[in-house]
Amino acid sequence: MPHYRFAIAPSGFKGSLSAGQAADAIARGVRRVVPDAFLDLIPIVDGGEGTAEALAAATGGRLVSRTATGPVGAPVRTHFALLGPDPGTPRTALVEMAAVAGLSLVPAGRRDPSATTTHGVGELIRAALDSGARRILVGCGDSGTSDGGAGALRALGARLLDAEGRELPHGGGALTRLDRIDVRTLEPRLRATELLLACNPFNVLAGERGVARVYGPQKGASPAQVELLAGALEHWADVLARDLRPRQRTPDGSSVPLLSDDLRHAPGTGASGGLGAGMAALGARLLPRFDVLLDHLDLDARLAPAHLVITAEGALDRQTVRGKVPAEVARRAKALDKPVIALAGTLGEGAHTVRASGVDAYSGILPAPVALAEALSRGAEYLADAAERALRMVLLGTRMTAGDGLGRGAGRTDGHRAGVAVPARPSLPAVPAAPAS
Amino acid sequence: MPHYRFAIAPSGFKGSLSAGQAADAIARGVRRVVPDAFLDLIPIVDGGEGTAEALAAATGGRLVSRTATGPVGAPVRTHFALLGPDPGTPRTALVEMAAVAGLSLVPAGRRDPSATTTHGVGELIRAALDSGARRILVGCGDSGTSDGGAGALRALGARLLDAEGRELPHGGGALTRLDRIDVRTLEPRLRATELLLACNPFNVLAGERGVARVYGPQKGASPAQVELLAGALEHWADVLARDLRPRQRTPDGSSVPLLSDDLRHAPGTGASGGLGAGMAALGARLLPRFDVLLDHLDLDARLAPAHLVITAEGALDRQTVRGKVPAEVARRAKALDKPVIALAGTLGEGAHTVRASGVDAYSGILPAPVALAEALSRGAEYLADAAERALRMVLLGTRMTAGDGLGRGAGRTDGHRAGVAVPARPSLPAVPAAPAS
Repeated sequence: MPHYRFAIAPSGFKGSLSAGQAADAIARGVRRVVPDAFLDLIPIVDGGEGTAEALAAATGGRLVSRTATGPVGAPVRTHFALLGPDPGTPRTALVEMAAVAGLSLVPAGRRDPSATTTHGVGELIRAALDSGARRILVGCGDSGTSDGGAGALRALGARLLDAEGRELPHGGGALTRLDRIDVRTLEPRLRATELLLACNPFNVLAGERGVARVYGPQKGASPAQVELLAGALEHWADVLARDLRPRQRTPDGSSVPLLSDDLRHAPGTGASGGLGAGMAALGARLLPRFDVLLDHLDLDARLAPAHLVITAEGALDRQTVRGKVPAEVARRAKALDKPVIALAGTLGEGAHTVRASGVDAYSGILPAPVALAEALSRGAEYLADAAERALRMVLLGTRMTAGDGLGRGAGRTDGHRAGVAVPARPSLPAVPAAPAS
Repeated sequence: MPHYRFAIAPSGFKGSLSAGQAADAIARGVRRVVPDAFLDLIPIVDGGEGTAEALAAATGGRLVSRTATGPVGAPVRTHFALLGPDPGTPRTALVEMAAVAGLSLVPAGRRDPSATTTHGVGELIRAALDSGARRILVGCGDSGTSDGGAGALRALGARLLDAEGRELPHGGGALTRLDRIDVRTLEPRLRATELLLACNPFNVLAGERGVARVYGPQKGASPAQVELLAGALEHWADVLARDLRPRQRTPDGSSVPLLSDDLRHAPGTGASGGLGAGMAALGARLLPRFDVLLDHLDLDARLAPAHLVITAEGALDRQTVRGKVPAEVARRAKALDKPVIALAGTLGEGAHTVRASGVDAYSGILPAPVALAEALSRGAEYLADAAERALRMVLLGTRMTAGDGLGRGAGRTDGHRAGVAVPARPSLPAVPAAPAS
């Protein structure tokens, strides 16, 4: 048997497994079938929880611990990642917004997205600058805030003032009273720093699909708060455009002003409760999260030698092709002409659409009728077993084409000819499939 | 692409799908992947519910309707099968005991296995004789009786008498009072008839693993009834051996007496609540159900031209290898060197043991965490989808070995050589799998 080489590139399974645990589980199942295979474990992070840790590990960098302001104002113990050196680029830090302003840091009783703040994100960016980083990647996702990045700007020296010249309190709700932004005290090192935001480009700041209306309710906002926040964030975009006068680079190297409408509707401006808009106003480039994160994982180079790519996520459904991990991994694998299988805890409505993104075959992982809670708690076991089962199916296929491509019985003199199955006993008709019952 | 030929040979899914419905569902899923494949649908019946219908259809025979005595004494509309002509054998009938004495014919409120009767089985055997059958196959399984076949013997003319010479009432419980069997009025045509019983050889009449103790409780017997029945059936074996003086043929063509111990412990004597013992006393041969049923389905000949065999059952677990459909189909497919996959609603404890019987790969069919009731009601949809998914895995494998056997990327000049995966970038170490967490 050849020594197979498999790339194992799963997402985490929300509520059950981190991406690293998912990769470990898949590898355990695969090894039961092909103990001598080369396995390259590539846990895929999406910018949210666990991204700093994963990228520090993948690049040979390190985590730097800090205390910073949490989303409800109380200090939290947090960290950012200094990525391993990459020749030709400045020292790069990864600030994971979820690690300092994530939803999991907001106590259940204090889920008021009009009051939570990204102040700690700005503090971590400062800390990264203190560590010598001149290229700072901000990972979005799993946020507990909706302040448009106002807290982060303040932590970086901007002063957010009302009509009486008083500084506003924390939170997106207060932005309705924003009169102007004083940028004279803005952190000067930012000018020599490349700021990048790894975000979901489908998230925009304003409008019907804007961040307040789409994510506000799940962050705990009442309908009235949602409308308050939506208005506050539109106003925030106006004032940012006017007072920070941000510009964006064009492909030809020149730069053009970033207008209020750009901050409201450009892809990624709604990322992490509008942090995208605030960062864009500071000059950050908003990048599709996988474009930047997967490059740091060196994904393409690691997929290239694989005979098979195995990806996974908690669910496969109609949303998967809109920028979820399995679709992204499959897209890159297809560019390299690699076969791809996907495993999922739940195969939801429209799961078959993932095949359009390059997933050749997929499978659920559940062995029996179980409740969701049990499925979540036994995720690692289920995933390992499912990986084993899927690989046995695949390897059975490799044997089906052994010899002349017609199955293991092909060596028999029973009427098979290359490429066409000739019935051995023509008197046995092939029974047509019955119509759907 | 070659025209694949697949043999689809599933069991029914208890409480969800008949074997025929299961085969149809699998075929639907397969056709989504390979619309032009030859599919041979071979629903596998085990002697229980649906066997008469399936064998009539598979052999080009017909069902014959009759009214006969049901398990609780009331008449039921039932049928037996006259199988299609098979040159060289006498006209053969299939009497499905479940169709006239099955558990589903016993109203929930009348589940007293000491009282239910196989009288209707004997009536159907008589009806088959009336139709000219001289070879009668009795299918066991799904029975609602525990009378040792006493009812069937009575319907065939035997008189079961107590010490006062009065005929006993229906049911296994009454056999404790059996004094003798008057066989002078026994149906004379039986002597010129070949009686065969298709049964699970693991079922025996008496002892700790005897039918009363193993199946009595699920047929509704209380612990006291179980012990009453166990004693009654042991006594039944004694009287049968004494008064019917049955003999069995030996391989060399001679015959030897069938002793009381044989009727108690020989394989299959416990089939269908001890019907096996009663039939054996009439001279029936007790055969492993699949040996006889699968021959009538012409299974081996139909597996021979297949590139892949797909079997299925409601559950795969440690019991599967003890004579369940997927194990039996796989065993025969292996003798023909065919690859086999199995699909199941539940992958239970020890499911992996099915690989020893020849199942190369298997998969569960559940797409998401669901309750059992939902899984049962959506069985056809789930099975079709699972068949599609499994086949895509298998076909991905056929492509993995296309060309030089090293995957679709194998044509690239990135360091692959036939048979061994040479890392394209030696600087990327293969990450070893983490130990089980």
